[in-house]
Amino acid sequence: MELLSKVGRYEFLSEPFHCDFSSHLFMGHLGNHLLNAADFHSNDRGYGMNYLMPRHKTWVLSRLAIEMTEMPKSYDKFYVETWVENAMKYFTARDFKICGKPAADEEEEKVYGYGKSVWAMIDTETRQPVDIFSIHDGLIKEYLEEEKECPIAASSRVKMSADAKFVRSIDTYYNDVDVNGHINSVKYIEHILDLFDLDYYKTHFLQRFEIAYVAESHQGDRLNFYEEEVNEGEYCIKITKICKNDAKEVEVVRSKAKFIKK
Amino acid sequence: MELLSKVGRYEFLSEPFHCDFSSHLFMGHLGNHLLNAADFHSNDRGYGMNYLMPRHKTWVLSRLAIEMTEMPKSYDKFYVETWVENAMKYFTARDFKICGKPAADEEEEKVYGYGKSVWAMIDTETRQPVDIFSIHDGLIKEYLEEEKECPIAASSRVKMSADAKFVRSIDTYYNDVDVNGHINSVKYIEHILDLFDLDYYKTHFLQRFEIAYVAESHQGDRLNFYEEEVNEGEYCIKITKICKNDAKEVEVVRSKAKFIKK
Repeated sequence: MELLSKVGRYEFLSEPFHCDFSSHLFMGHLGNHLLNAADFHSNDRGYGMNYLMPRHKTWVLSRLAIEMTEMPKSYDKFYVETWVENAMKYFTARDFKICGKPAADEEEEKVYGYGKSVWAMIDTETRQPVDIFSIHDGLIKEYLEEEKECPIAASSRVKMSADAKFVRSIDTYYNDVDVNGHINSVKYIEHILDLFDLDYYKTHFLQRFEIAYVAESHQGDRLNFYEEEVNEGEYCIKITKICKNDAKEVEVVRSKAKFIKK
Repeated sequence: MELLSKVGRYEFLSEPFHCDFSSHLFMGHLGNHLLNAADFHSNDRGYGMNYLMPRHKTWVLSRLAIEMTEMPKSYDKFYVETWVENAMKYFTARDFKICGKPAADEEEEKVYGYGKSVWAMIDTETRQPVDIFSIHDGLIKEYLEEEKECPIAASSRVKMSADAKFVRSIDTYYNDVDVNGHINSVKYIEHILDLFDLDYYKTHFLQRFEIAYVAESHQGDRLNFYEEEVNEGEYCIKITKICKNDAKEVEVVRSKAKFIKK
């Protein structure tokens, strides 16, 4: 198999109906574009879902961090570059750069922001981790790109104290669920960012967002949201689920959102 | 200004994370693609939002009906064709055809389904209707396409009896709101289709969906859903809003969903 470039570059449009009240792309839709870029990149290189699905294996997103200096505006074309920075037996680190098309008379490329993610591979039947290097004799190692810059901090472990307050409970429905029958990674991002009021977004910019997927939840589960403001504009959020016919509360997501004043 | 073709044709991808548990595109995301196609088509022809927005005017979607024989599957490329079937002073009728790329050895084009919509134009400051023919001396009339087939029924007036039952109440958040500050047309579609359980979708196909936008709602409004099964698998749905600081219940959306057994 001929090797492709290590970095994939994919064009997206900041669609008008994917933009918020201020005509800037919603973070959830940006997250979706990053997942698409990851999907296209790994499919094109032989270790994506198209190859894994018939073999009862799948990539599972474990952590995602996004840091932005600016969000694409409505109708902006932008590019997501993505590459695998690191690969171990059970985890890979994938980076993202979100950039614009430079105008003909500009030398500098416009950079909107960056992303960092961690992925695991699992067997869809046993739900057990799969050795990533077992795919095509460790083909992914041929694609490691360790030089390209991604100047943001990786996801950290989000610590929450006993001060975290219960802030909301929501039910999950048909549109929340992906092809694996689980609540979609992007939907969690939307539900978390819905904790902040429209008026808050009018005066604050979401500079950094990170999320760690701890356990799976399913349609019909009730999600509880706990929040703690650790610094001004910096919120730690925990989501737990309560399944039907089971009162036990289980943590499914931990996240952190950092806003700065506009 | 040189005239373009009357029918616009736009390519879309049925993105994996926009697909439901069965790997078929969610109806809400299809609706979004139809709105995008309408937007691209009217912008390209000089009477779109790009021209209207700086002039404090906007298109407002009044009705949408979609009828499908099949939904695009995950990773399918498909095309939305759209054209203006009819234009009057205060309303235009726009049609859609959702089709696939024919394989090289096939003569017949694959048709997934059709859509019909009705749009009004309003002044964004006075919220009053605008004479559509006032835009570029009635330019839209040059683009009427009355011959192209769109073999589905237009939206009908959805009648509901006193038997309609209250079924759900939801709050509206940041991600529900579009650039006009109103609950996004597509979000209503998702909230309505969320009334049906995942298990129902496992045994039923959504053949026809129609929605009429009656009034606007805003972030923070509480939406109440009323439902009535008028025939087997055929549901009429009404959404009302209750605004903050105002107990009055006002109808905002009326809709009909017709499912057939798989």
